[in-house]
Amino acid sequence: MDVKDVFAAAEFSNVRMQKINLFETKNFFCDIYCLEPGQEQKVHAHQDEDKIYYVLAGHGSFVVGDETRELGEHQIVMAPAGSQHGVKNTSARRLTLLVFMTPNPNFK
Amino acid sequence: MDVKDVFAAAEFSNVRMQKINLFETKNFFCDIYCLEPGQEQKVHAHQDEDKIYYVLAGHGSFVVGDETRELGEHQIVMAPAGSQHGVKNTSARRLTLLVFMTPNPNFK
Repeated sequence: MDVKDVFAAAEFSNVRMQKINLFETKNFFCDIYCLEPGQEQKVHAHQDEDKIYYVLAGHGSFVVGDETRELGEHQIVMAPAGSQHGVKNTSARRLTLLVFMTPNPNFK
Repeated sequence: MDVKDVFAAAEFSNVRMQKINLFETKNFFCDIYCLEPGQEQKVHAHQDEDKIYYVLAGHGSFVVGDETRELGEHQIVMAPAGSQHGVKNTSARRLTLLVFMTPNPNFK
């Protein structure tokens, strides 16, 4: 049984945002994103893949489409396929996210 | 920007487990599962869809394949396509899950 603890899996770096993979199949992948203050996943888009960001701990600034919004713990947002999206830790504390992306572009 | 709060979205019933849909696209759906003590999602399988259960609050008994395990807050488990899986709230308190399933069988 493939069980993980999201906070035990989290790893941070002083250099850049870290992505830790929890699960991956031909259909999706599920990662933890770990952002120290000031770190970000730059705004980007992928034509075919939907993404979900769920805030496990902390808060930060999220971009989806032409909107930017501060989200905190227990909030969840979807970035639909084709939309611009990204996240920046604009706070003074660590930001930890649970992220799903589907389908898996490695299996096109 | 499609933002939700997972705990604000949760709804419980005395009759049966509740599923509240947060997001749905042709690629996936993402739901909150709300189980009062004793409620369950009976063990079942779907040939093509992977599922993830993430425990937002509480704890319960999870089946994946031929294993049964008690999981609690911050734990996450994957039930791969084709595997038997289910969940039962064997505790005395509410169990709230974030659930992700892909692909979306409604768009085969």
